[in-house]
Amino acid sequence: MAKHDALSAPVSDSSAHDHSKIPQPTIERLSTYLQCARGLQTDGIAMASSSEIAARTGINAAQLRKDLSYFGEFGTPGLGYDVDALSTHLTRIMGLDKTHDVLLVGAGNLGTALASYMGWVQRGFRIVAVFDTDPAKIGGSLANCKIASLDEIAKVNAQCKALMGVVAVPRESAQDVVDKLVASGVKSILNFAPTGILVRPGITVRNVDLTSQLEVLSYYLHTQ
Amino acid sequence: MAKHDALSAPVSDSSAHDHSKIPQPTIERLSTYLQCARGLQTDGIAMASSSEIAARTGINAAQLRKDLSYFGEFGTPGLGYDVDALSTHLTRIMGLDKTHDVLLVGAGNLGTALASYMGWVQRGFRIVAVFDTDPAKIGGSLANCKIASLDEIAKVNAQCKALMGVVAVPRESAQDVVDKLVASGVKSILNFAPTGILVRPGITVRNVDLTSQLEVLSYYLHTQ
Repeated sequence: MAKHDALSAPVSDSSAHDHSKIPQPTIERLSTYLQCARGLQTDGIAMASSSEIAARTGINAAQLRKDLSYFGEFGTPGLGYDVDALSTHLTRIMGLDKTHDVLLVGAGNLGTALASYMGWVQRGFRIVAVFDTDPAKIGGSLANCKIASLDEIAKVNAQCKALMGVVAVPRESAQDVVDKLVASGVKSILNFAPTGILVRPGITVRNVDLTSQLEVLSYYLHTQ
Repeated sequence: MAKHDALSAPVSDSSAHDHSKIPQPTIERLSTYLQCARGLQTDGIAMASSSEIAARTGINAAQLRKDLSYFGEFGTPGLGYDVDALSTHLTRIMGLDKTHDVLLVGAGNLGTALASYMGWVQRGFRIVAVFDTDPAKIGGSLANCKIASLDEIAKVNAQCKALMGVVAVPRESAQDVVDKLVASGVKSILNFAPTGILVRPGITVRNVDLTSQLEVLSYYLHTQ
């Protein structure tokens, strides 16, 4: 686990806050603010007002200030946010100041698409092992990894010690895959299988339900 | 556009509410409540309390009641929610009481994964045309559609009249694809390319940033 070290003095220590009180939508927006701060850095902009950030993210300025207030003092009244400092703060808060090793389970179309997804490495995630159950896939290559049998997951992760896993398998095998990931030491899982997953306390599963994204669009289409 | 007809009397008319006042996270949770109601129906449960729904969805009961309150009166104090009525209400509110035709652009790994994704048809979405720019893919088949050239999108959608599009193309061509979708009559777009997209007012784009999902997991891993 990345913990702040003594050299990180200019950055407020997020571990000093009560994280259980921070709403999940706030956490989700932090990622958007971080992307925005990085975009501002790329564009060579050193200071940005909350309304400039609002214009870029589509999240209103009051919400931005409220979200950031959970993590201490940011920005200077009348001047706005120092973009480099904001980027550094958010990177630390999100635990993105180190690269996360990730196990990928499923080397089908979705797994292959995820492995080739732009931006994982730049944003701090590295696939260190890939697993599948299909004998035709095992031994092949994906994301610069040799595809291993799912049965080898405990052995492989005894060496890799990855804490994150991505599940890109059919619905019917998702729970078994999650159980094996957890048994191998994984603590946080991104699940693309369209099914509910049960895990013990202390393990985080985030379900990405792609159809629900379409349902949200349907709502806006319906009410326009 | 699905509009409520005179026969839908038992269901409150969502168009009577001011949709611009409803927070986006509420809309996103409606999809979760609808999945929950459908699961309860599958399990043969006729009535459910808000705490039962909370246990299934992980969204607390007070939030559930607040979210639903935007759309009128639901549930009976002391008895809970009639599951069939809740499912019907949510289906209407989300505009899911008709099937939505969807154009898919991109027949690579992600497009293929999306096309074979479980549950689209059951949940009311039907891919009616697939487009790509790769001559090796054009003329092939995906989601029971013949893959057409992106240049044909206006001609094809003059017939299909689809209002929704899914963009599964590389970052650098995403804006061009969105422009062509909008020109062909599409109003709501789900974009998987990791880049910001500009559209005119009246067009909805929902960006699915898969890396930000990992960033949220990183936060929880970091703060555990």
